[in-house]
Amino acid sequence: MQIAILLFDGFTALDAVGPYEPLEGLPDAEIVFVAEQAGPVRTHTGHLALTADRTLAEVTRPDIVVVPGGPGQTGQMDNARLLDWLRAVDATSTWTTSVCTGSLLLGAAGLLEGRRATTHWLGLDMLRTFGAEPTGERVVFDGKYVTAAGVSSGIDMALALVGRVAGDTRAQTVQLTIEYDPQPPYDAGSPQKAPKEIVEALRARTRFQQPETA
Amino acid sequence: MQIAILLFDGFTALDAVGPYEPLEGLPDAEIVFVAEQAGPVRTHTGHLALTADRTLAEVTRPDIVVVPGGPGQTGQMDNARLLDWLRAVDATSTWTTSVCTGSLLLGAAGLLEGRRATTHWLGLDMLRTFGAEPTGERVVFDGKYVTAAGVSSGIDMALALVGRVAGDTRAQTVQLTIEYDPQPPYDAGSPQKAPKEIVEALRARTRFQQPETA
Repeated sequence: MQIAILLFDGFTALDAVGPYEPLEGLPDAEIVFVAEQAGPVRTHTGHLALTADRTLAEVTRPDIVVVPGGPGQTGQMDNARLLDWLRAVDATSTWTTSVCTGSLLLGAAGLLEGRRATTHWLGLDMLRTFGAEPTGERVVFDGKYVTAAGVSSGIDMALALVGRVAGDTRAQTVQLTIEYDPQPPYDAGSPQKAPKEIVEALRARTRFQQPETA
Repeated sequence: MQIAILLFDGFTALDAVGPYEPLEGLPDAEIVFVAEQAGPVRTHTGHLALTADRTLAEVTRPDIVVVPGGPGQTGQMDNARLLDWLRAVDATSTWTTSVCTGSLLLGAAGLLEGRRATTHWLGLDMLRTFGAEPTGERVVFDGKYVTAAGVSSGIDMALALVGRVAGDTRAQTVQLTIEYDPQPPYDAGSPQKAPKEIVEALRARTRFQQPETA
């Protein structure tokens, strides 16, 4: 089973590695990191590079597609080569998935029209631009499309996907292997739970660009 | 503030990237990925490489050291260059930290003698070999030494560390930014919670090598 995880400049590392780790627990998982050009691809701070081992042209029929988000997502919203690739691999994928603002790229490719979906909490309204219906859920399954909320939610998404693909016992084995028994030291992980002033401060300093101006 | 994240062949990606993401939220964070040789360093399946931008020799006084674990940890237990580097950077670090079996490397370097510590649940007994006292906690602070349990626990560890270093508001801001409001689809993340047959199956197929035979 081939699983393609997309990389682009300025992606968020945990968006990609959060799903990577549980998906490695799928039977016969062949995970490939893919980008327009092969080689190191950096996060938005430049502090970390993951290697894309394959170019888009080399990965044509993955069973599962994972699209991370991150600050660099806005710069890809009118990247025809990347959006064409998403449409092409989606035509034969078993599952097309995203984490964080990766769903905005799926939306820009026209893949979320009429579907329930999610993204980073700061970008939820943007989903409507693509004809999708934003939900407040952390992981949204709509047919073969699976979208997850911000950054860390990709772990939950991938575990749920392992369960769908390979059964509950396999998913629980993966969860125990990665000791995913989360105990956050604070309870500020969603805009409903975080102190209001922190929510407002993040809203004030973050502006998602509309696709027509990206 | 310089934060050095160690890489070695066969490390577990989420052990390193789980802490990376929250630690990027520290003020003036300069995160450097470091390994014996600069260049791509692969996980144990070979499916993913992270780039080490610096060699051990180039990183001499990080404020925070993060040591991930993974299947490749056993092969490093008698790597004198790596253990010497751990001892050298620990001499001036503000915080020396680990995720998963990374604490066994700290132990092998002699840094956990007489300290409370943790590691992946399958490796807890090994900590005694190094004079450390294993605990069942997910994140253990003992002076400047911070050890975390298996794989995904590095996110909890790093959030707690951001709180200690930069205050609760900063840590909560980071938590909301990465939308860390975990909702695992199963409740099998610890040996106390997972179905007994899954725990036993993992115990049966995993044998941590004693350091003298590693």
